[in-house]
Amino acid sequence: MNHPIDPVIRQRALARSAQLFVDAATMGADGPGVTRAAFGDGETRLLEHLEHVGLELGLRPERDLAGNLYLTLPGRNPELPAILIGSHADSVPQGGNYDGLAGILAGIACVEILQARGEASSRDVTVAAFRGEENAWFGAQHLGSRAALGLLDPTVPGQARRSDSQRTLADHMRDCGLDAEVLLTHSPHLSAERIACFLEVHIEQGPVLLQHGLPVGIVSAIRGNVRCPSARCLGEAGHAGVVPLTLRRDAVVAAAELVGAMQADWLRREAAGEDLVLTFGKFHTDASAHAVTTIPGRVDFAFEARSHTQPVLDAVRQGLLDEADRIATARGVHFEFGTWSASAPVAMDARLRARLHAAFEALDLKPFELPSGAGHDAQDFAIAGIPAAMIFIRNENGSHNPAEAMQLDDFALAVDCLTELVRGESQ
Amino acid sequence: MNHPIDPVIRQRALARSAQLFVDAATMGADGPGVTRAAFGDGETRLLEHLEHVGLELGLRPERDLAGNLYLTLPGRNPELPAILIGSHADSVPQGGNYDGLAGILAGIACVEILQARGEASSRDVTVAAFRGEENAWFGAQHLGSRAALGLLDPTVPGQARRSDSQRTLADHMRDCGLDAEVLLTHSPHLSAERIACFLEVHIEQGPVLLQHGLPVGIVSAIRGNVRCPSARCLGEAGHAGVVPLTLRRDAVVAAAELVGAMQADWLRREAAGEDLVLTFGKFHTDASAHAVTTIPGRVDFAFEARSHTQPVLDAVRQGLLDEADRIATARGVHFEFGTWSASAPVAMDARLRARLHAAFEALDLKPFELPSGAGHDAQDFAIAGIPAAMIFIRNENGSHNPAEAMQLDDFALAVDCLTELVRGESQ
Repeated sequence: MNHPIDPVIRQRALARSAQLFVDAATMGADGPGVTRAAFGDGETRLLEHLEHVGLELGLRPERDLAGNLYLTLPGRNPELPAILIGSHADSVPQGGNYDGLAGILAGIACVEILQARGEASSRDVTVAAFRGEENAWFGAQHLGSRAALGLLDPTVPGQARRSDSQRTLADHMRDCGLDAEVLLTHSPHLSAERIACFLEVHIEQGPVLLQHGLPVGIVSAIRGNVRCPSARCLGEAGHAGVVPLTLRRDAVVAAAELVGAMQADWLRREAAGEDLVLTFGKFHTDASAHAVTTIPGRVDFAFEARSHTQPVLDAVRQGLLDEADRIATARGVHFEFGTWSASAPVAMDARLRARLHAAFEALDLKPFELPSGAGHDAQDFAIAGIPAAMIFIRNENGSHNPAEAMQLDDFALAVDCLTELVRGESQ
Repeated sequence: MNHPIDPVIRQRALARSAQLFVDAATMGADGPGVTRAAFGDGETRLLEHLEHVGLELGLRPERDLAGNLYLTLPGRNPELPAILIGSHADSVPQGGNYDGLAGILAGIACVEILQARGEASSRDVTVAAFRGEENAWFGAQHLGSRAALGLLDPTVPGQARRSDSQRTLADHMRDCGLDAEVLLTHSPHLSAERIACFLEVHIEQGPVLLQHGLPVGIVSAIRGNVRCPSARCLGEAGHAGVVPLTLRRDAVVAAAELVGAMQADWLRREAAGEDLVLTFGKFHTDASAHAVTTIPGRVDFAFEARSHTQPVLDAVRQGLLDEADRIATARGVHFEFGTWSASAPVAMDARLRARLHAAFEALDLKPFELPSGAGHDAQDFAIAGIPAAMIFIRNENGSHNPAEAMQLDDFALAVDCLTELVRGESQ
């Protein structure tokens, strides 16, 4: 492979990344995994450590009112909108070490390489380490980046409670020396006027790169979703030994048929080339009433579908309702879908994606595009009108668990791609 | 209709039944339902009340070592094997008033009518009120009748614990003045030498008579069953947003497909005229791990099938295993069926069924046969080699719940059929 970057400089930066991965894993060790609670001690300690490293590297540290950390390599013209690179510092409870952290360390490695090369950048290049991206803690996601962009729902700090402590986000911000009231009344720290683009490196949370034998990929879009987390199928409980076939209103049989119908719908859409994943993540008879000898009268279930294409999401939702109607009529049951939630797909910036294609090719890497099925800080930048792009790193065993396994060689290639892109954008 | 029984005598016996139903409901009242715990106070109080009624009627009371009550109308020749009529005195927790009790009161009404008619019976006619028939209390069924027949598993008294108290059957027997050790070492109270036949009236626990517009029916057989109460499907948990279709090992999709396949199998067997019911009574993702956004890695489920034909049960069990193998291969999951249990179908006595047909016809009732899907004391008599027969009474809303609804007019017709049969058998 043709690496346009001086191998000594590159190796020094990557050695620092390796050390920082170890430092973070040690600081966050929690049984078999790592835990860096959103707006909690582990996250705070990591940010302080990264700030210290940034100072050693001669970067300019800054904090915003949400406690997010920024480390800036100043450019020739600090008035120009900056290039922002980063990801999040928190993890899920007993999660892995790479989800989030890899994107921050890729940013630090990138600016260290740029700095060491001594090439003058036209504009500031800033590494961001955001707090509170993971939904697991407060039941709301991307808290740090949304706060920085002025996109935080103002009811969240006072109402959202952390899953472990049951205390509010505002309480936990206070522990971190932050004031939610002040944050919510101030103008956003980040805006399209100040930020030229946002670039996020992240481990892939699925197995697609692994399956394709590719170390890195370019994110095409972040999938939107439709969800009904609290749906149910209501039939009629009865004695399993005595009610004949035609008189049953079996909720498990009906809901299982819905699962099968939606699986068949997915197969058809997959064959037609549509982007889609769909899941019944919860599906359960009533533990207080079910029995081996009782025809189940109720099944509670959760459904979600994700796609990078809104019309697919709309069609799948309608398909679910139509199939449920059909099954309800045929089986004498009743479906209730409860409250729906939805988020729109967010495309990554077309120009940046094209630049990433070129960067990949310059590095002899296949410019493979894939959608992100999970949400990321990058999507809020796109929503805020700031061009955003993402690079995925191949990763085994999924994310949000201690077994997530990114190879440092793959991480190094992501740093190369990122650096190549930033060099182009900062000339 | 042509009632061969003197209407005044009949009416007096049925009025007593009506009063006894009210007495029992009042004594056992527990919120919206009735509770007569097996080997508990409610059951004991009801037996004492029935014993008192029997004495008033001039019947000879007797108790066996399991505390079951027998009320005998003596026949001309007490050396001849007796006709035994009865059912059980216990109910499930917060159950209905008719399940069990209807059979005891039908027996009392029958002997009251025989006695009032003054026809000499060749042999003793005895009403039995058994304890502890319901599985709900000790996780083992027909305890009273099995104890009387010498069929009680000798490990049960010391090991089975009552669901409410967590104390053993032996403990609860001691509360009732009974000694489990003595019971287990004595010869059985009932045997084929002493008992000519056992006749049990019971509410139908399903809706078949209701659907056919018939007040009473003749039980053809008690269905046997095959069960796996603790089966599971193991796939692989994963991020719902990122794992593509072909890489999923979704336990809900796989187990739902098994439900659908077995439902289709049932439809085919139903069309072929086979007797079968099958149920997945429990079906649940893991509450400690499932989430809207997680591909379910595990489903726990329970399966049972019942039929009055053993080869059908064998074929359905094999069909379940074959379908599971096919799905496991296709979907990369693994099924574990845990411990199986089974009970063989028990046919009701052919001669007694023929006599019941004749009795129904003599009373201008349609001699409709149906299988019993639930277990009953009568099956243990059949297993012990004592000819047994059952009459079902139409009943709304199933059993084991406060809403079970038997009409006294239907009960009266069951008493007529029973009396007609007993007259024939005791001449």
